[in-house]
Amino acid sequence: MNFVAAPARLSTAAASFEADFAARLHWSADTDAAIEQRVADILADVQARGDAAVLEYTARFDGLQVDGMAALELTQAELKAAFDAIPAVQRGALEAAAARVRRYHEAQKQASGESWSYRDEDGTLLGQKVTPLDRVGIYVPGGKAAYPSSVLMNAIPAHVAGVGEIIMVVPTPQGARNLLVLAAAYVAGVTRAFTIGGAQAVAALAYGTATVPKVDKITGPGNAYVASAKKRVFGTVGIDMIAGPSEILVLADGSTPPDWVAMDLFSQAEHDELAQSILLCPDAAYIDAVQAAIDRLLPEMPRAAIIAKSLSDRGALILTRDMDEACAISNRIAPEHLEVSSTDPHRWEPLLRHAGAIFLGAYTSESLGDYCAGPNHVLPTSGTARFSSPLGVYDFQKRSSLIEVSEQGAQKLGTIAAELAYGEGLQAHARAAELRLTPVPPARCPPSAAKESAA
Amino acid sequence: MNFVAAPARLSTAAASFEADFAARLHWSADTDAAIEQRVADILADVQARGDAAVLEYTARFDGLQVDGMAALELTQAELKAAFDAIPAVQRGALEAAAARVRRYHEAQKQASGESWSYRDEDGTLLGQKVTPLDRVGIYVPGGKAAYPSSVLMNAIPAHVAGVGEIIMVVPTPQGARNLLVLAAAYVAGVTRAFTIGGAQAVAALAYGTATVPKVDKITGPGNAYVASAKKRVFGTVGIDMIAGPSEILVLADGSTPPDWVAMDLFSQAEHDELAQSILLCPDAAYIDAVQAAIDRLLPEMPRAAIIAKSLSDRGALILTRDMDEACAISNRIAPEHLEVSSTDPHRWEPLLRHAGAIFLGAYTSESLGDYCAGPNHVLPTSGTARFSSPLGVYDFQKRSSLIEVSEQGAQKLGTIAAELAYGEGLQAHARAAELRLTPVPPARCPPSAAKESAA
Repeated sequence: MNFVAAPARLSTAAASFEADFAARLHWSADTDAAIEQRVADILADVQARGDAAVLEYTARFDGLQVDGMAALELTQAELKAAFDAIPAVQRGALEAAAARVRRYHEAQKQASGESWSYRDEDGTLLGQKVTPLDRVGIYVPGGKAAYPSSVLMNAIPAHVAGVGEIIMVVPTPQGARNLLVLAAAYVAGVTRAFTIGGAQAVAALAYGTATVPKVDKITGPGNAYVASAKKRVFGTVGIDMIAGPSEILVLADGSTPPDWVAMDLFSQAEHDELAQSILLCPDAAYIDAVQAAIDRLLPEMPRAAIIAKSLSDRGALILTRDMDEACAISNRIAPEHLEVSSTDPHRWEPLLRHAGAIFLGAYTSESLGDYCAGPNHVLPTSGTARFSSPLGVYDFQKRSSLIEVSEQGAQKLGTIAAELAYGEGLQAHARAAELRLTPVPPARCPPSAAKESAA
Repeated sequence: MNFVAAPARLSTAAASFEADFAARLHWSADTDAAIEQRVADILADVQARGDAAVLEYTARFDGLQVDGMAALELTQAELKAAFDAIPAVQRGALEAAAARVRRYHEAQKQASGESWSYRDEDGTLLGQKVTPLDRVGIYVPGGKAAYPSSVLMNAIPAHVAGVGEIIMVVPTPQGARNLLVLAAAYVAGVTRAFTIGGAQAVAALAYGTATVPKVDKITGPGNAYVASAKKRVFGTVGIDMIAGPSEILVLADGSTPPDWVAMDLFSQAEHDELAQSILLCPDAAYIDAVQAAIDRLLPEMPRAAIIAKSLSDRGALILTRDMDEACAISNRIAPEHLEVSSTDPHRWEPLLRHAGAIFLGAYTSESLGDYCAGPNHVLPTSGTARFSSPLGVYDFQKRSSLIEVSEQGAQKLGTIAAELAYGEGLQAHARAAELRLTPVPPARCPPSAAKESAA
């Protein structure tokens, strides 16, 4: 069968650009109300009935009927057996990727995840203590998008942070286990693993059941049910982010072989028909060359149907006036993956303000980052790079402020605090500060507090 | 009128301790379904009708009827006038508090919020670029809990992070403006301010209206409507956290004057009848002395009614076997505010694993931290300190991974990435890596990809 991949051809110089651009970018994170209601029901049911509910939903949605929860737990021996069963070259690749991901996240912890403190001139100690979470759950999609690399990308930063227990859930529709996923869980050092998925798995992790331990935070991508469930349990547990379809944006100055760029656009498009691949380039002839490469390379792709639909429905090749304008448009999109395919990527990088990950130079294909460059591949999608960050060690840590006020410091701070507390009508706050003063001043009765008292 | 503050007296040695403890701690973050539905309707309405809807809800809920949105915006001149109008001693206290909060958050930025990178042995660059958010909204509660200190605590970290525009919303029921709140907005350097509140203000910030600019993130505490609205717009914008009732936990070794501890318990209890104040102490006589201080000091408190109800309904004085056990129980609670009222606080601090802020030593009353010690007073509540952190500079920054793979690095990484990509059935990912290899190997057609192709 012949597929046609026809991304939209836009030009920033065209009068219709803003409208065409907005139409192409449109994607709504809003969840379907019917999905929301079903998810709410599943969460309530798992909270009420625990394991029994999890078993029922797993039978119904994953076609996996078992006698009890024990059959839904993967033992450490099973994880190791999977690792032993895969080809040596895959074992080597998994271990090499894991080592690089670990090293990067160790650097990240050192750069931004250590406790700190200082003493001011009054001897008052101020700082923050950084500690790992006790127990986290990682959601690994199963079925058509079972990605062993996601196991590494979720579990390794948790390990580096010092998390005590890492509980993995991965659905195995019809009982089909993905050996590479299990092997990755072994390499990453997952503590326990369950073959459950969907909203029922999120519920089990958030509330705990007799078998599945309650966690402090749930990370990892999933389908619309998983996303809705994570959003709903947020507050009871922490969550990382709500993932939308994957995206790549390539900023090209025309110096990279067009085949490379075409294949990079494919590598996002092959994930999902909703995935989005966009090229921004000031060279019209180069854009033509990339389209020609797309046409030539597409038939070789096993996932040509998905690629063609994704590129035709959501892809775009955008002619810009210059690279500066391309950078400005990239900032409006705030893409998940941003390739700067240029001979001088460091010229443009400072202009790029919003992106999940920035890939500099022609040799840095996004796929290297997906698997083994080191940085995390769980990245903010759908423009959320405007306010959120790649999954990292910091997602598996939390901070506690540290304050130790000296007797001398309490004299100065107590006066300031009391003034503001009286101003807010919070007399106990004021008196708590004033009781530490020498001598203790008499209590004031400010108007707002008096009013409160009279009420 | 005489109020009685009778916190529950528990002992860890009692057989009923676990049950009594669980009952006292119980608090549900679940939102009322009726509130959820009303909030959903308000959000949809503001998204659809913009300013017109905001004006209507402000008239209905805040009793504030005006001709147009201009009347709901506070000008910089109005903020400055408020600052000029308050007593000099309040101006001085606000400025002193702001300076200390600024200094602490600058240290925080330096310790954990700077960009970093390294090159590996192949010359591949790996790192993270840290950038501020473009525009944030800060929600400041109005009405009975209008706290100028919250303006400082939200706006200053945003400023230190480098956020370009800070949009404040603060409801002014019946048009009553709180001069201290306006003055604090002036001191903190808020960019624009609107006298709107509730779910309609959250919606205006999240979606933008003709008048209120759309922001990237919304921070700051609010009532059940605000909390529900923030949770619902999460994903469209970032949010900080869902705040529950405030809590204090005091670990006391019996060395601090009982009046001080009693007043510290009051200073949480006076916020709200749902607030929770707990004392953990291994010395029964000291607990009696604190209860006596509570009885003696309560009548002096303007907010005695609230304090009495909060302490009686939700407070607890818990006798523990020793300080070690007290620390273990504190970790189970994961309190928002944790005072270590001991002559040797540094002995216990390393045992304390979950808390929003830790106040070390008798002189460090929680109220000093609320106003001016320097650390943020927006802290995780209801046990969420298990997985979340004080509001900080990091909440107003986001990170982008940086990757620059050298030609040499691409040879090694491309081989690993291709192996894993073929294993996941993602041929375009594999080929994107392989096209950068010299020589380019022939494409493989792995079984899973072949299956996909045949489908």
